[in-house]
Amino acid sequence: MEQVISYESLYKFTHAVFTAMGCSDSDAVTATTVLLSADLRGIDSHGVARLSGYVRLWDVQRINAQPEIRIVHETPSTAVVDGDTGLGLVVAPYAMQVAIEKAKTVGTGWVSVRNTNHFGIAGYHAMMALQHDMIGISMTNASALVAPTFSIERMLGTNPIAVAIPAGEQPAFVADMATTTAANGKLEILQRKNEEAPLGWVQDQEGNASTDANILKKQGALLPLGSDREHGSHKGYALGAVVDIFSAVLSGGSYGPWAPPFPAYVPMPENMPGKGLGHFFGAMRIDAFRPAEEFKQHMDNWITRFRNATPAPGHKRVLIPGDPERAYEAERTEKGIPVVAPVVKDLEEVGKRFGISLLN
Amino acid sequence: MEQVISYESLYKFTHAVFTAMGCSDSDAVTATTVLLSADLRGIDSHGVARLSGYVRLWDVQRINAQPEIRIVHETPSTAVVDGDTGLGLVVAPYAMQVAIEKAKTVGTGWVSVRNTNHFGIAGYHAMMALQHDMIGISMTNASALVAPTFSIERMLGTNPIAVAIPAGEQPAFVADMATTTAANGKLEILQRKNEEAPLGWVQDQEGNASTDANILKKQGALLPLGSDREHGSHKGYALGAVVDIFSAVLSGGSYGPWAPPFPAYVPMPENMPGKGLGHFFGAMRIDAFRPAEEFKQHMDNWITRFRNATPAPGHKRVLIPGDPERAYEAERTEKGIPVVAPVVKDLEEVGKRFGISLLN
Repeated sequence: MEQVISYESLYKFTHAVFTAMGCSDSDAVTATTVLLSADLRGIDSHGVARLSGYVRLWDVQRINAQPEIRIVHETPSTAVVDGDTGLGLVVAPYAMQVAIEKAKTVGTGWVSVRNTNHFGIAGYHAMMALQHDMIGISMTNASALVAPTFSIERMLGTNPIAVAIPAGEQPAFVADMATTTAANGKLEILQRKNEEAPLGWVQDQEGNASTDANILKKQGALLPLGSDREHGSHKGYALGAVVDIFSAVLSGGSYGPWAPPFPAYVPMPENMPGKGLGHFFGAMRIDAFRPAEEFKQHMDNWITRFRNATPAPGHKRVLIPGDPERAYEAERTEKGIPVVAPVVKDLEEVGKRFGISLLN
Repeated sequence: MEQVISYESLYKFTHAVFTAMGCSDSDAVTATTVLLSADLRGIDSHGVARLSGYVRLWDVQRINAQPEIRIVHETPSTAVVDGDTGLGLVVAPYAMQVAIEKAKTVGTGWVSVRNTNHFGIAGYHAMMALQHDMIGISMTNASALVAPTFSIERMLGTNPIAVAIPAGEQPAFVADMATTTAANGKLEILQRKNEEAPLGWVQDQEGNASTDANILKKQGALLPLGSDREHGSHKGYALGAVVDIFSAVLSGGSYGPWAPPFPAYVPMPENMPGKGLGHFFGAMRIDAFRPAEEFKQHMDNWITRFRNATPAPGHKRVLIPGDPERAYEAERTEKGIPVVAPVVKDLEEVGKRFGISLLN
């Protein structure tokens, strides 16, 4: 059912595909590194499984492989970046770097991005801040699959938020979450296994509770974090809305139900109020608040205390955000990345088209 | 069971109490305005119902009525404020104003606060940004009542996040939410009515699902937004953790299970790693990203589109964050504020002590 492929093989293959699309070597390196960070970290839905999707978007000219990414407006602590419909995998690290540079100068940097595309995992970009002793924040809007509380209409994407916070001896705190109860990737896993979804993840087209993992193909919707009003879905809806507004209304991107779809066969929404998808990035220099070493010692204390909180019966320990992904990364860096059969087939077809072999 | 009291009467009474505690007139005005904004906006748990709690904290010298609030470190876009154990109701607006002034100069301002106390509703402080055509962000840590995913130990407060975003013709978008499935105030309402809580709000001391609205008095815990792992409680836990770290680890406050308790009879935690509670505030000038008028037109479009999303059967319309609170504020400004009998009694006792009459 799955094939284990080394990181190096996947890297060479993916880099060659981006190069064949016309990306510069430097952009292909960036895009490959960002894309594969998802596979390494166990977020299989956002890695090579999406490569053919990017190629199809490039085919229909919704992705520009040679974008002129530029800052269109700025202040000492802010910028708006126009991605020129480039790969989000390239536009996002550019914009995050702008945020980091501004933080070096005035303490923090905040960058809203328009005219961009899917940027891989939010966590990658937030984590760029860590090596600079900064807190990193990353978010993006996405095509609408989520119904707000009290609605049956898909109005928001799964709109993730990532926050990366440096520690000292301990590994960094890295939260990376969709603002829905379950990410779409989790539904896709259930679809492949032909299993049902837990109640509270999705609703059908009339707003009824549903366990059908294929419900999105039947006009159903994902539910905001909280699942229903009684369990706080209005909070998940508000969080997804904030991501949408920071990413696309601040930048001049296309927001809410007008966010461009990832599948190339889905027509673009009519009357789009802005350009492309939107992202939002933040970088905060730790020593703009207190000495970095002092902060990191307290983060070590924070992490150690939480890791040692009394576990509930049946559980070994409390996890710190980022723990599961780090465990995946350690294992997959060493042993390779398991790729399910449909994705292997998909990659082979992409390879055939460009004359690139997957296992070289 | 409840008495309707005019805003003016409650205002005069509360102002007189804060003045009797030793607050300057200006601080008493601020504290009263912030505290009563909760009653006006229908968040009854955070308004005058807490007044006697503040007095008791002052009695045991955990609140300083005449604090010297000061900036202890700053950069062009950041500051750390020490609240000198003042009322959070006074310290928070001071710190938010610092964030706003920094945003005027460099586009955004970010202020972490230590050595402070409970600040009322998060939404008030975030909304201070609106009149400046800025986005406002406000959060605070709080005494530990929430068990992280997989734990039975109370490690985090209900740690709210508020985000206020200006619009044009439409009222502002104002999200103000605890990072738990249900705020503690909702449990208190059920306690008064002798009703059970829905499954998913709390767990008992062994981590079992519970519907006991009094479970916090029996070593139980509130659950993070998402309720359980399958429904995303690790996300609510991560959000609460980010609030804790931004508010108290960045500032030098006391974090996690060491956050100081609100009830004055609860002893302070041992080995506190910092000073007092922590808050975190942000202000982002809209025109640091795009012209404010243009942004506000798009916010009007966003709000109108979401308000008109197809409602689910049995629901009239989709709400915009801030809608319910604004409806309360309109009604209560006109008709007065309903105060339940135990709170009226509580206020009368506070009044007796200081020789202040509630209905004057």
